[in-house]
Amino acid sequence: MALVVQKFGGSSIADVERIKNVASKAIREKEQGNQVVIVVSAMGKTTDNLIAMAHKITNDPPPREMDMLMASGEQVSIAMLAIAIHSTGCKAISLTGPQVGIITDEVHRKARIKRINAKRIKSALQEGNIVIVAGFQGCTENNDITTLGRGGSDTTAVALAAALKADVCDIYTDVDGVYTTDPHICPKARKLDKISYDEMLELSSLGAKVLANRSVELAKNWGVVIQVRSSFNDNPGTLVVKEDKSMEDIVVSGVAYNRNEAKISIMGVPDRPGVAAEIFSHIADAHIVVDMIIQNVGQKGKNDISFTVSKDDFRQALKISEDLCKELGADGVKSDDKIAKVSIVGVGMKTHCGVAAKMFHALARQGVNIEMISTSEIKISCLIREDDVDKAVRAIHDELELGESGS
Amino acid sequence: MALVVQKFGGSSIADVERIKNVASKAIREKEQGNQVVIVVSAMGKTTDNLIAMAHKITNDPPPREMDMLMASGEQVSIAMLAIAIHSTGCKAISLTGPQVGIITDEVHRKARIKRINAKRIKSALQEGNIVIVAGFQGCTENNDITTLGRGGSDTTAVALAAALKADVCDIYTDVDGVYTTDPHICPKARKLDKISYDEMLELSSLGAKVLANRSVELAKNWGVVIQVRSSFNDNPGTLVVKEDKSMEDIVVSGVAYNRNEAKISIMGVPDRPGVAAEIFSHIADAHIVVDMIIQNVGQKGKNDISFTVSKDDFRQALKISEDLCKELGADGVKSDDKIAKVSIVGVGMKTHCGVAAKMFHALARQGVNIEMISTSEIKISCLIREDDVDKAVRAIHDELELGESGS
Repeated sequence: MALVVQKFGGSSIADVERIKNVASKAIREKEQGNQVVIVVSAMGKTTDNLIAMAHKITNDPPPREMDMLMASGEQVSIAMLAIAIHSTGCKAISLTGPQVGIITDEVHRKARIKRINAKRIKSALQEGNIVIVAGFQGCTENNDITTLGRGGSDTTAVALAAALKADVCDIYTDVDGVYTTDPHICPKARKLDKISYDEMLELSSLGAKVLANRSVELAKNWGVVIQVRSSFNDNPGTLVVKEDKSMEDIVVSGVAYNRNEAKISIMGVPDRPGVAAEIFSHIADAHIVVDMIIQNVGQKGKNDISFTVSKDDFRQALKISEDLCKELGADGVKSDDKIAKVSIVGVGMKTHCGVAAKMFHALARQGVNIEMISTSEIKISCLIREDDVDKAVRAIHDELELGESGS
Repeated sequence: MALVVQKFGGSSIADVERIKNVASKAIREKEQGNQVVIVVSAMGKTTDNLIAMAHKITNDPPPREMDMLMASGEQVSIAMLAIAIHSTGCKAISLTGPQVGIITDEVHRKARIKRINAKRIKSALQEGNIVIVAGFQGCTENNDITTLGRGGSDTTAVALAAALKADVCDIYTDVDGVYTTDPHICPKARKLDKISYDEMLELSSLGAKVLANRSVELAKNWGVVIQVRSSFNDNPGTLVVKEDKSMEDIVVSGVAYNRNEAKISIMGVPDRPGVAAEIFSHIADAHIVVDMIIQNVGQKGKNDISFTVSKDDFRQALKISEDLCKELGADGVKSDDKIAKVSIVGVGMKTHCGVAAKMFHALARQGVNIEMISTSEIKISCLIREDDVDKAVRAIHDELELGESGS
């Protein structure tokens, strides 16, 4: 008998028909002799609607009360799902985050889980129940309701799987699993059977949008096996697991891209110690996350410093850079928000060489210009023109032979 | 400094504008130097909508899960109200029933409060907060969410007022207070300054629809002063208090009516011991509440037994009566669902005589026929034709001089 944690997002339970579909998936798992814990988000657009309602009163509602408000959404979902399972004659019980005992810190709207008391869930499972837990929520030691921020339900699912020592944590999404690249861009994209935590982390943060990064980190720390799979069919998905020897044979697992990047260059910055620190501490003070950074040695003791930020932060970062330019006596600022990033990820890169060259060749053959390059142990990213993304992804995918065998 | 509990129903907080109105009432009370605890129901038709959604899955959802579902409604209200109060710069904190520590028995959907832990509310008040509590809900010792059934938010408010030893429990409604009779029928109706618990209980159960009976009983047991007042103006309302000497001078406090009655008579029932018990135990087995009962001694050792039930139960009660008629060898069954009940209520009736005669005279002068009469220590009820209700109420109200002085 295995213990399975299943997580379903808001679109998987957006209406009564979909709730019944989720109920039948859980019941089937139970009928195979397994214990089942389900984690659900709020139905459809509920959370957005609640936020909009609060914003009718004020644009700056107190975080504690926003958590109180938003947590009602998952409470509706768990009750509805319990009612649906119960109506088929199967035993089910719903529990809110506070009822489970998901204890968090006191940072409302982006609380972190401190510990989980698995006692109530375990006894409910032993009584033969399918246990349905509200995702995204917990409570402080003082019994105040908190929410876990973006991707919070994934985090709840993985944390519960860790606390319960579950055999697998199935994350149901609108895709079949993790692909070698986006199938919408590259029809030859192939579903991966498994991928390591580190590769998944790079792919998520590179814009692959499958799993929230925080939940992957948590899974890595606690050794939780995640399966990414589809809400709409029964195909096996992609396992996200600990890196093993066999994975190193696969040099590159996937090609990711991110269109949400913009580049800013401060030209002719006087070359003296501490100047880079000064620039990036100003940017950080504005809570702007910088992605890539490149410094070129220029002429006459002056350097060009380039960096990328998300398009959302572009205007603000540009303003700060222009102010800094004057302050530092630099020559000027250039900017570009028509760029994008393509990346290849794979644990095998640690032990194989020549991968970067293959990537650059593929781009060159398509006439795609590389504006910046950054690398980590298991990743290579290139900044290119936004318009070139599709052909770049296809070219790299082909060059590295990631597609279906025979294609 | 007084401690005031305020209760607002669903229609008083149906939208953002009304929530702001409730916020300003609470803030004004606070600014007068009082401590304020607010109890709210779910916004507008939320509870009905949640029930309808569950019924899309099944007509028989498990009560525990229905409580989980419905309790989300008040959670939204308390958060929204806290946000509204907070946005004016005033301190406010929302608490669910379980967070307060409103501990109930385990009878889901109509739980009874066992005890209230007032600690959290008291410390929040001491920190200068307006405390907003979700009405209608509590939790079991095992931390399962329960709801209190019809009129549950009134019950929460009165129970909190008792636990906190509040100076007054203001119940805000869509009327100004308790009237000598329905102002829609009798324009001379006068708002009462105060009324005793027992009179209020009789008036509620007679159909005056102002306060849930359970909350009045609770207030009586714990000596909580209730004020019934309007959400839409600042007029003083009606105090519901312990009976005092001065009240006995007012012989009759009000005239109530109830159109939701139907009469059934079983004619010629053999006169033998236990026959009435047999009839009414059959009716009770069907969970039908009987209101008035009259037995006339007939001829030849046979009696006519008449009783009234609510119109909702009429068909079922009639069927049972017809079956019983055959079984008992009675002569036949008559029925009438075009009747209504008018009643006068007053603690002064205990010590004054001649009140019944005045009532009967008033009805006789209008040509209103009395079909049944029932009395208690502080009440006299007459069953009349449904069409006669308006003129009967006005005639009795005039005869007993209950209207505005000089009118």
